Amino acid sequence: MNNNYISSDAIIGKNVEIGYNCIIEPNVVIGDNTYIDSNTIIRSGTTIGENSFIGSNSIIGEYLMDFCIDRKKHEHFLNIGRNALIRSGSIIYTDSKIGDNFQTGHRVTIREKTRIGDHVSIGTLNDLQGYCTVGSYVRTHSNVHIAQKTIIDNFVWLFPYVVFTNDPTPPSDELIGSHVHSFAIIATGVTVLPAIDIGQDALVAAGSVVTKNVDSYSVVAGNPAQYKKDVRTLKNKITGKSIYPWRNSFKKYMPWEESDFDTWYSSIDFDEKKYYMIDKLM
Amino acid sequence: MNNNYISSDAIIGKNVEIGYNCIIEPNVVIGDNTYIDSNTIIRSGTTIGENSFIGSNSIIGEYLMDFCIDRKKHEHFLNIGRNALIRSGSIIYTDSKIGDNFQTGHRVTIREKTRIGDHVSIGTLNDLQGYCTVGSYVRTHSNVHIAQKTIIDNFVWLFPYVVFTNDPTPPSDELIGSHVHSFAIIATGVTVLPAIDIGQDALVAAGSVVTKNVDSYSVVAGNPAQYKKDVRTLKNKITGKSIYPWRNSFKKYMPWEESDFDTWYSSIDFDEKKYYMIDKLM
Amino acid sequence: MNNNYISSDAIIGKNVEIGYNCIIEPNVVIGDNTYIDSNTIIRSGTTIGENSFIGSNSIIGEYLMDFCIDRKKHEHFLNIGRNALIRSGSIIYTDSKIGDNFQTGHRVTIREKTRIGDHVSIGTLNDLQGYCTVGSYVRTHSNVHIAQKTIIDNFVWLFPYVVFTNDPTPPSDELIGSHVHSFAIIATGVTVLPAIDIGQDALVAAGSVVTKNVDSYSVVAGNPAQYKKDVRTLKNKITGKSIYPWRNSFKKYMPWEESDFDTWYSSIDFDEKKYYMIDKLM
Repeated sequence: MNNNYISSDAIIGKNVEIGYNCIIEPNVVIGDNTYIDSNTIIRSGTTIGENSFIGSNSIIGEYLMDFCIDRKKHEHFLNIGRNALIRSGSIIYTDSKIGDNFQTGHRVTIREKTRIGDHVSIGTLNDLQGYCTVGSYVRTHSNVHIAQKTIIDNFVWLFPYVVFTNDPTPPSDELIGSHVHSFAIIATGVTVLPAIDIGQDALVAAGSVVTKNVDSYSVVAGNPAQYKKDVRTLKNKITGKSIYPWRNSFKKYMPWEESDFDTWYSSIDFDEKKYYMIDKLM
Repeated sequence: MNNNYISSDAIIGKNVEIGYNCIIEPNVVIGDNTYIDSNTIIRSGTTIGENSFIGSNSIIGEYLMDFCIDRKKHEHFLNIGRNALIRSGSIIYTDSKIGDNFQTGHRVTIREKTRIGDHVSIGTLNDLQGYCTVGSYVRTHSNVHIAQKTIIDNFVWLFPYVVFTNDPTPPSDELIGSHVHSFAIIATGVTVLPAIDIGQDALVAAGSVVTKNVDSYSVVAGNPAQYKKDVRTLKNKITGKSIYPWRNSFKKYMPWEESDFDTWYSSIDFDEKKYYMIDKLM
Repeated sequence: MNNNYISSDAIIGKNVEIGYNCIIEPNVVIGDNTYIDSNTIIRSGTTIGENSFIGSNSIIGEYLMDFCIDRKKHEHFLNIGRNALIRSGSIIYTDSKIGDNFQTGHRVTIREKTRIGDHVSIGTLNDLQGYCTVGSYVRTHSNVHIAQKTIIDNFVWLFPYVVFTNDPTPPSDELIGSHVHSFAIIATGVTVLPAIDIGQDALVAAGSVVTKNVDSYSVVAGNPAQYKKDVRTLKNKITGKSIYPWRNSFKKYMPWEESDFDTWYSSIDFDEKKYYMIDKLM
């Protein structure tokens, strides 16, 4: 039917809908109530959680180099949690682990050895180069490029065309990723040099080239990026209210969406704070 | 035939050619003499004008979030005019309206609530985020990113990797788009901050970060972009002739292609000048 | 079988594997032991060398404008050498010539009249606009944009989001490409203005906007890029050793991978040095 190829050993949940021309390889598990749209390929070793939506023309569990060389199936696994919404044209490699409530724009590329937490949204045309870590409640806008060995903590915002690098002496094999701490915001069109530490609640202004570490709560701007002010001094021009730390003024998509940050923070226990790396909030 | 799925209620014009593995959903109208290349999906509610060419692997009338949530067809419409040339790999959402003689490069993304005039060319890998307006005779090169609420007037040129933003205090929901006026030129690799007004015939030099309004006829450059000179003082290094306003020296793709700007301008009536917002040319 | 369309006049080598839903048009030649993955389209006039791997959802030999206008097959040819590895989602136009051991990331676009040497690697989402020349042993990272008329010599490295331009007075038809000489390195997020000459072994630092020629062995940085130092004075911070010229310290993917640059250089004859344009190494 529909000219799909569905392996007889694939485990398909209840109420799963599968579009036209889909290819579901052996050793795939698809959770209940999931939707696989037309022309999509799900490769061996992939598990997709229940209640997910996989857009058209996607490749989920894409081959690693070993298959391209010997054309033999190797044992690799991709795990995507529940409630995923992966938009059309995306390519996600095998050998990665992605949490629940994952969402992407179109044509994202996520390579192997990527770890992604829960409630993460990755924008259109993002390019995660693998061997990197993205925390929970991270949101990236379009065309963010995350170099290998980059670490993004929880509650971080990356705006369009933020590009991370990892090679201090190109070309080399001595790659050193950058590390972005919780609640930091990197605005549009920023290039981050290798091995940079961007502190908690820092704000990197649009168009900056970050060549040295950024302290917590600092606003930096320019090429090279230089310290401008404390982020807590920024006021909304209309209301006159403080804007940052943004967790006090913005709640969409966040676990404190139904109340406010402080209420949520005081409602969770130490282990959960630790899990989100906000047990020692400055 | 060809394993296509073509809804029995789709209205297919005369001499329409449809490639392999195409999916044409219900409630689609395809004009005469149009070509739908292989692997392309045309979703419900889409109308494509006559004499158009839709490249392979495209998704025209892509789902909005509502479908991803409840998997039910909602009433949305995408209207693409006559003589469209949409290159392979493009994704155009439903709930937009695009004029005649529309052309794209490969893998463009155009989201919902986008209004595009006539004779517009959108480059490869452009990302129009929706809720934006693009005039007529606008030409964008590769990887242009147009944030929600951006307004681009007629006869504007956007070169590769021009990126518009819309959030003055990220993250927030108080988005304010920028506005680019007629005949302005934004060169390669420019980032435009939110709520910026770029005047008629202004020229933003490559690599600039635009942090404040740009007056008509101004050349700005740098990070942050600063005023350099009046665009009318720029001469072609070889011929010594004035280059700008470019409408006097360049005519390709333009309605004055067969004559020159002044001849064309004096040949059209006030209403047409008003339509193109050039009734009050400075 | 597999619902493929394979033209009866296509010449398919021995041991070629073809995935699901592939379309192989007339007048195609596929070498022995090549793998064409699912949903891929190989258009008329394409030759792919033996032992190659063409990823899913690719379009190889994509139509030029002439077909989009009259929907008739015109005589154009694309030649891709042996041992190619083209990753999924790529679009390569006809009327280009690519050497052996070619490799790409995902969703590259390579337009017509592109000449590419041997052992070249083109990164994910690169956009080669055609009418350009890329030497041998060139490696580009993600999202590199190569404007028409650009010339890239051998052994050049282009890091993510390097963008070449070609129009000194936009918009115009008087395009002048830039020229990057052998062993040069252009780091992440660099915009190169039109008609720029970047010398042998030069290093352009991340985030630069290159507005004038760069001498051989120069390090330039900033917007606009300015001379900083001689690249030969740069030391590895940990080992204290010189890093550049990189051919003395880095060998991965290079023809001197099994020995070192000097040994390889003294082992090849004058003609081969000339072929690689390194007969007159400064």
